[in-house]
Amino acid sequence: MSQHPGYADSKADHLKRLRRIEGQVRGLQRMVEEEQYCIDVLTQISAATKALQSVALGLLDEHLGHCVADAVRSSGPHGGPEADAKIREASDAIARLVRS
Amino acid sequence: MSQHPGYADSKADHLKRLRRIEGQVRGLQRMVEEEQYCIDVLTQISAATKALQSVALGLLDEHLGHCVADAVRSSGPHGGPEADAKIREASDAIARLVRS
Amino acid sequence: MSQHPGYADSKADHLKRLRRIEGQVRGLQRMVEEEQYCIDVLTQISAATKALQSVALGLLDEHLGHCVADAVRSSGPHGGPEADAKIREASDAIARLVRS
Amino acid sequence: MSQHPGYADSKADHLKRLRRIEGQVRGLQRMVEEEQYCIDVLTQISAATKALQSVALGLLDEHLGHCVADAVRSSGPHGGPEADAKIREASDAIARLVRS
Repeated sequence: MSQHPGYADSKADHLKRLRRIEGQVRGLQRMVEEEQYCIDVLTQISAATKALQSVALGLLDEHLGHCVADAVRSSGPHGGPEADAKIREASDAIARLVRS
Repeated sequence: MSQHPGYADSKADHLKRLRRIEGQVRGLQRMVEEEQYCIDVLTQISAATKALQSVALGLLDEHLGHCVADAVRSSGPHGGPEADAKIREASDAIARLVRS
Repeated sequence: MSQHPGYADSKADHLKRLRRIEGQVRGLQRMVEEEQYCIDVLTQISAATKALQSVALGLLDEHLGHCVADAVRSSGPHGGPEADAKIREASDAIARLVRS
Repeated sequence: MSQHPGYADSKADHLKRLRRIEGQVRGLQRMVEEEQYCIDVLTQISAATKALQSVALGLLDEHLGHCVADAVRSSGPHGGPEADAKIREASDAIARLVRS
């Protein structure tokens, strides 16, 4: 891991989105506290889930373009174990996202 | 909407889970703030997403067993528009969950 | 299980959609056979997955409106084990869909 | 597109999986034809969906390791438009998978 992760440039944007998601989750607590209608709570959960996935897809795109691409470039013309490991790690993270 | 939603009995449990999810989302903000490794952030996002889906599935189960079942029962032996509307509404919420 | 499942009326429609999905899966085999571009294969897989989910959501809506509603109605004004079992079974199927 | 897509080596394996999925979809048609119980049909649809996603994740892993890595390597030490385009295209395919 470098000191500068792939998402350094868009850090402020990710933080803004995560703070908005925190607000959505607090809003969900208020809805449940006030015993609001189940379907309305479910609609809000779907919105928060989509917002989390959207942050994940943004991070992943930057990870491929920075960390993975750097590992590929520094592994020379025929690839190598470091590049392979980075790609496997990214694939595993994608699988977790697809299945969650 | 009745004064007692389907999830009245398990309200405390849902609130506990939602507070834990709020903690996960705040943890995500800290990870991004500290520029932690992308893949570790993604793993935490998958965990928070799964936790949100789990709350949604619990609410939906109770909604079917209370609100939808009540509408079916009070609509008489051959069903009726109110029961149909409740089932359609639940199906739409399920579709949003499956697609989110 | 009755002789008439919830989806009896829309059986022809489900069969038509499933035959179209079978065509999509055969198309995928042809694409892989011809070594077509990975991304194009992935786009087709996403389309087939969405089509399968759409059949599932249709079946589930009918299942709630017929099998589950019938069990609720025949279990009397306070519910009963048969209705509870049907709702639990439907919730489990929904959870499998959301997580797949 | 090159003559050798990223999945050339595992083509036989992907074809075998896709033929098994075709069999699952034909099995689904038979189940609906015979009016089998809705929940059993749904269980089979979840299985076929997971199998399709699994093929997609395999193709994506190979695509990252071959097509994307090749584009990154041939774009030189500072990246370039071809590598960027490949990564964007892969990210878009991942987003479609996550959302389907």
